[in-house]
Amino acid sequence: MTHFASFDSLRASCLDLPGGDPEAAAAVARREAELTKPPGSLGRLEELVGWLAFWQGKSPPRLANVEILVFAGNHGVTARGVSAYPPEVTAQMVANFAHGGAAINQLAKLVGAELRVIALDLDHPTADFTEHAAMEEAQFLAAVASGYEAVSPQADLVVLGEMGIGNTTAAAAVAAALFGEGGARFAGHGTGLDEEGLKRKRAAIDRALARHRAILGDPLRIAAALGGRELAALLGAALAARHRCIPVLLDGFVCTAAVAPLVKLRADALDHTRAGHRSAESGHRLLLEELRMQPLLDLDMRLGEGSGAAVAVLVLRAALACHTGMATFAEARVSGKDG
Amino acid sequence: MTHFASFDSLRASCLDLPGGDPEAAAAVARREAELTKPPGSLGRLEELVGWLAFWQGKSPPRLANVEILVFAGNHGVTARGVSAYPPEVTAQMVANFAHGGAAINQLAKLVGAELRVIALDLDHPTADFTEHAAMEEAQFLAAVASGYEAVSPQADLVVLGEMGIGNTTAAAAVAAALFGEGGARFAGHGTGLDEEGLKRKRAAIDRALARHRAILGDPLRIAAALGGRELAALLGAALAARHRCIPVLLDGFVCTAAVAPLVKLRADALDHTRAGHRSAESGHRLLLEELRMQPLLDLDMRLGEGSGAAVAVLVLRAALACHTGMATFAEARVSGKDG
Repeated sequence: MTHFASFDSLRASCLDLPGGDPEAAAAVARREAELTKPPGSLGRLEELVGWLAFWQGKSPPRLANVEILVFAGNHGVTARGVSAYPPEVTAQMVANFAHGGAAINQLAKLVGAELRVIALDLDHPTADFTEHAAMEEAQFLAAVASGYEAVSPQADLVVLGEMGIGNTTAAAAVAAALFGEGGARFAGHGTGLDEEGLKRKRAAIDRALARHRAILGDPLRIAAALGGRELAALLGAALAARHRCIPVLLDGFVCTAAVAPLVKLRADALDHTRAGHRSAESGHRLLLEELRMQPLLDLDMRLGEGSGAAVAVLVLRAALACHTGMATFAEARVSGKDG
Repeated sequence: MTHFASFDSLRASCLDLPGGDPEAAAAVARREAELTKPPGSLGRLEELVGWLAFWQGKSPPRLANVEILVFAGNHGVTARGVSAYPPEVTAQMVANFAHGGAAINQLAKLVGAELRVIALDLDHPTADFTEHAAMEEAQFLAAVASGYEAVSPQADLVVLGEMGIGNTTAAAAVAAALFGEGGARFAGHGTGLDEEGLKRKRAAIDRALARHRAILGDPLRIAAALGGRELAALLGAALAARHRCIPVLLDGFVCTAAVAPLVKLRADALDHTRAGHRSAESGHRLLLEELRMQPLLDLDMRLGEGSGAAVAVLVLRAALACHTGMATFAEARVSGKDG
């Protein structure tokens, strides 16, 4: 079992990261140049195949084992009236996942991925972070370890998603703590909060930022004090994937905020990840800009559950199908450029 | 056999367009509202299911028969040095399509579509439109009819694509003729033209616009004088799909320019179409803005062949999978908003 004994030992683990395989990426680039198309004309599809190869260390890369991990948690801050839905919905949706009724179930089937849902102590919401740290050190580290453990070593790609009523408030608080400017910047309408609710949400974040100002220089303590169990698990899963050189697709705002502390610890910590999509949740655009991430899709989705990133798996499949299946100029006897 | 006797009879056909089925779209919207997700949280996926239903007149819509039609043509304007590739490549790529070696072959297989490639008199390029009309009336109408005939009445969705060395020059000329401001506005690097080539391309377009200024008020004569056979066929295919109420995904710049004359004849003529993606070819962004079309994907692709639109089929499949497979709030016993 993975065990992080302290913030310090987790931090050390976050700083100890392998790089990718430039030779696998170079082999992909060589083949791309020979395929029957103008150089670069498949755009991001070409870049994505190179990225998969770089992290997997394989040319061609593989997408046989695609794993969607959805982490669920509950949040004490819901007591502040920051969500349009009651907190019971988290467990109800976890049951819906189990019965195959949610969007992510349909998408997992469509994209040929294995879906695993990990519910994190739903009966015990985190503390209301406007008054206390959301999690004590040990609680936080246990949630990180749950995420770390959830990643299968044999996965070719990990898709990260989440469910948790109130968690866009936690995500906005974490993002504001990491990147500054207070609750108004990253707080959005979440699942459909009205204007009064949005005011409460912003106020809760600002109150939390004030209460926890002593730890705002420490990315992992921010994640513990202002995040949630599912966010901590997402951080752990992204870290595990990096340690195992498995590429990762991130879903929307909550998912991106959850892993953002890693970048504050080490600037290249998310190089093995791509933003699967840009969520309609307003904070996501800002957060992606802070992280200099260009999302694969922009379809105005804001559901969470890994749904946007799951759709993006299809883009990767398209990229890989072209890379592996196309003929070369020589095979097809097609004249080259300026030929 | 479809036969258009004259510009006038084709124009009459372009003005005689059926609408969609609001009841099918309303039925989709009713179901969307009951599915286990916050209202609207699947964003464009929800909009797309409604669009499919509206045009198919079916709730739920179907994507069992997806047809990718790729039209190929050759262009006399290549004599002006407007392409990075020699004109023989058009026929070579058609052979590559036949042998399954091109990007679109891999994508058609991946997305579960039938690919049909229609080569239009490749041995007889259109006339150099800097000196003559690219096509005489009868040649143009025959090409339109080829496209019209190519659409299967039983298709659930038609994906349009093209191949033709020199055809971004034709597309830019058509777009400039329809929307103004000359050759510089819509001309781009195509398959990888250098700066000198781009100057020649712009000059060729401006020369053509001057030569054909007498017909620039007539969208169909523009298509004949400045377009090409594959562009004419794309127009015919889009028209046939509309007459049969089949939704259409457009590919990139050439494809969009080819059907743009229809909108100049009747403002709602492309309501049954969606832009599958935004091409990296610079004129496409401008053209999509002129047409007020929001593309489904923006992956920096610029290959043509229908490749961008083919990837977008996957977005439609994701949309439909969620719509048809998800549980309702009642079925899943999930509490609703503000519940």
